[in-house]
Amino acid sequence: MSAPGAMPSVAALLAEIATIGRDPATGGYRRMTLTREDAALGEWFAAACAARDLDVTTDRNGNQWAWWSDPDTEAGIVTGSHLDSVPDGGAFDGPLGVAAALVAVDHLRAQGFQPRRPIGVVRFLDEEGGRFGLACSGSRLLTGAARPERVLALRDEAGTSYAEAAAAAGLDVGGLGRDDEALRRIGTFIEVHVEQGKALATEQLDAPIGIGSAIRPHGRWRLDLVGRADHAGTTQLVDRRDPMLELARFISAVRIAAENHAALATVGKVAVRPNAVNAIPSSVSAWLDARADREEQVDAVLSALAEEGFEPLLESWTGSTDFDPALATRLSELAGGCPVLRTGAGHDAGVLAQAGVKTAMIFARNPSGVSHSPAEFADAEDCERAAEFLAVSLVDLAG
Amino acid sequence: MSAPGAMPSVAALLAEIATIGRDPATGGYRRMTLTREDAALGEWFAAACAARDLDVTTDRNGNQWAWWSDPDTEAGIVTGSHLDSVPDGGAFDGPLGVAAALVAVDHLRAQGFQPRRPIGVVRFLDEEGGRFGLACSGSRLLTGAARPERVLALRDEAGTSYAEAAAAAGLDVGGLGRDDEALRRIGTFIEVHVEQGKALATEQLDAPIGIGSAIRPHGRWRLDLVGRADHAGTTQLVDRRDPMLELARFISAVRIAAENHAALATVGKVAVRPNAVNAIPSSVSAWLDARADREEQVDAVLSALAEEGFEPLLESWTGSTDFDPALATRLSELAGGCPVLRTGAGHDAGVLAQAGVKTAMIFARNPSGVSHSPAEFADAEDCERAAEFLAVSLVDLAG
Repeated sequence: MSAPGAMPSVAALLAEIATIGRDPATGGYRRMTLTREDAALGEWFAAACAARDLDVTTDRNGNQWAWWSDPDTEAGIVTGSHLDSVPDGGAFDGPLGVAAALVAVDHLRAQGFQPRRPIGVVRFLDEEGGRFGLACSGSRLLTGAARPERVLALRDEAGTSYAEAAAAAGLDVGGLGRDDEALRRIGTFIEVHVEQGKALATEQLDAPIGIGSAIRPHGRWRLDLVGRADHAGTTQLVDRRDPMLELARFISAVRIAAENHAALATVGKVAVRPNAVNAIPSSVSAWLDARADREEQVDAVLSALAEEGFEPLLESWTGSTDFDPALATRLSELAGGCPVLRTGAGHDAGVLAQAGVKTAMIFARNPSGVSHSPAEFADAEDCERAAEFLAVSLVDLAG
Repeated sequence: MSAPGAMPSVAALLAEIATIGRDPATGGYRRMTLTREDAALGEWFAAACAARDLDVTTDRNGNQWAWWSDPDTEAGIVTGSHLDSVPDGGAFDGPLGVAAALVAVDHLRAQGFQPRRPIGVVRFLDEEGGRFGLACSGSRLLTGAARPERVLALRDEAGTSYAEAAAAAGLDVGGLGRDDEALRRIGTFIEVHVEQGKALATEQLDAPIGIGSAIRPHGRWRLDLVGRADHAGTTQLVDRRDPMLELARFISAVRIAAENHAALATVGKVAVRPNAVNAIPSSVSAWLDARADREEQVDAVLSALAEEGFEPLLESWTGSTDFDPALATRLSELAGGCPVLRTGAGHDAGVLAQAGVKTAMIFARNPSGVSHSPAEFADAEDCERAAEFLAVSLVDLAG
């Protein structure tokens, strides 16, 4: 399959949004949900879909859908991903899946393909949870995996609530929550995503694309360590209640527990109050991200932390999630027997799979394995191959 | 000495500024230098001085001076303090010294006192360094202890430079630096301050006020720990370069070094980049505050950290600083033999003493010893006694 001259490449589409939310100092992206940058990305998405003669709508939870023929007559084959980023994130995590979907549609149009089933392109809201702390709020609200009351009450670091941010972005906050109408339209969901490890880039595999078979169980927890604010220059060591010392103990305990239980566990976010050089902190919060092959391993990490006196509060949990095994096998065959992988990262695809949607993922090779970083990278040719293979898959499923 | 009915108390003056920069959630203050709140405090100070028939000027570095008779004919007796706070600081650290100065002037006016030497009230800019990281920038610029080029280049967390903030506040940034004209006017400096430990509140002393004799040596350092940003859910433990683990080791090493060398050492401020739950940090910065009775002890703390592989960069240093011994003795006698104390906290008085100004401090009792915290407190009666004693001191020195 080859693209005609006028058809933009995945790289060209990513270039169209390359300046939105980019920090010139680091080269990373700050595309936080329900911000100005997020709105600009949504406008770009709507325009790109409209230019492809797709019908663009926004569901009650702020996810955007673009349809090629009517999904209310028959459930469609949906593809897409998200456009938000972690703070200082990369250019591919999310946008690659959206750009690949648009390029796949271009391929199908160029072929004169007439889908028997509707084809949809989706842009999910707030996959990373980088602003309000809950990953995949767009898809979790859609499926009912997250209660709207809980999501609306989340606050960002500036104290703005999800409800306030959503209202400012023009959403009807009373309408948030499980959306059966939008869900019914999704017959199958395929998400293209940059691989966030380097399995495909290893010498053994060395494959431009791979098929995702499952998401490992993972969760997020918050630990609040309370001390007593005091002057750093006058308060004797014995009189101190310094929560920073507990933070140090927690970080070390997390690493040791991860090693002991063959899990991944990370303290990537910390909030210190008041965070002044000459003040002993009044409190410190730390966030734990823990994942493993099996749920028991994650449980064991939490138990080990509890034995050290740390009982972090669960903020979100995704159990071990299998994508549709027959679909994964079919896609791997279509791709000439490409590798099938489990992933440790959460995705909207995982949320949909947990809600019973037939789901698959296509990963594009990541030479360094680096993600959630300005250094995240995928070769333009590999991105293109992912989009081309997505088009092949859509023909297979919707043709 | 008793105040006539119309004379405001120290508590009443503090009440006038009680809402400026106050966080209703914590009750603490965010009076960061060169902000709107800071400007409001400066306006209040100028109006309060003008209402007392003092001539108010602002020096080239943004410090405000209010004079009772002309300091250019003879160097004056100066008192005052600062109005900025640490983030989430208390109501007394700084403002008590300014309010006590104003109340002392009221006492002298009420007595019909005619000073033989000029009396000045000063409000120093940016004592805490809570925004740009360098404590006492106002007095350090005044004395030349800090080079203006270095101060102007400092940046706050939002990336705003001191130069930009100073220009926005109306200062001529080209004029910052040692100000001999302003310095020549200071014959003697007396700073009233809330005690930041509880020595005066102990059973042995139990004194409403005490005289400061010296500031212990102290400094601030920054440690930048560089790792590699990566996805927390997909990057194997062995492949990680996670600077958070080094942060934990540093916090623990600081505490152990402090214990081993009878010093105070604190990690009170941390910056994590990108600070996302699902991202291994690319870098972590931590600030060290270290103090001791003798400079050798602080050196020993830094040496112990170096042995652990940590070599933080010095951001500011104040050597052991003795206030004028004869003045301390005289003030203690005037106060009926009140206690004479060394303090671990830095002050503008210390910066002036290092520049050769004859300097003294008067501490007001702090029942809990808590400072740099919303819980910081001094009894209204003790604050009043400090102001009354300041008036007695001014009569002694300027009469």
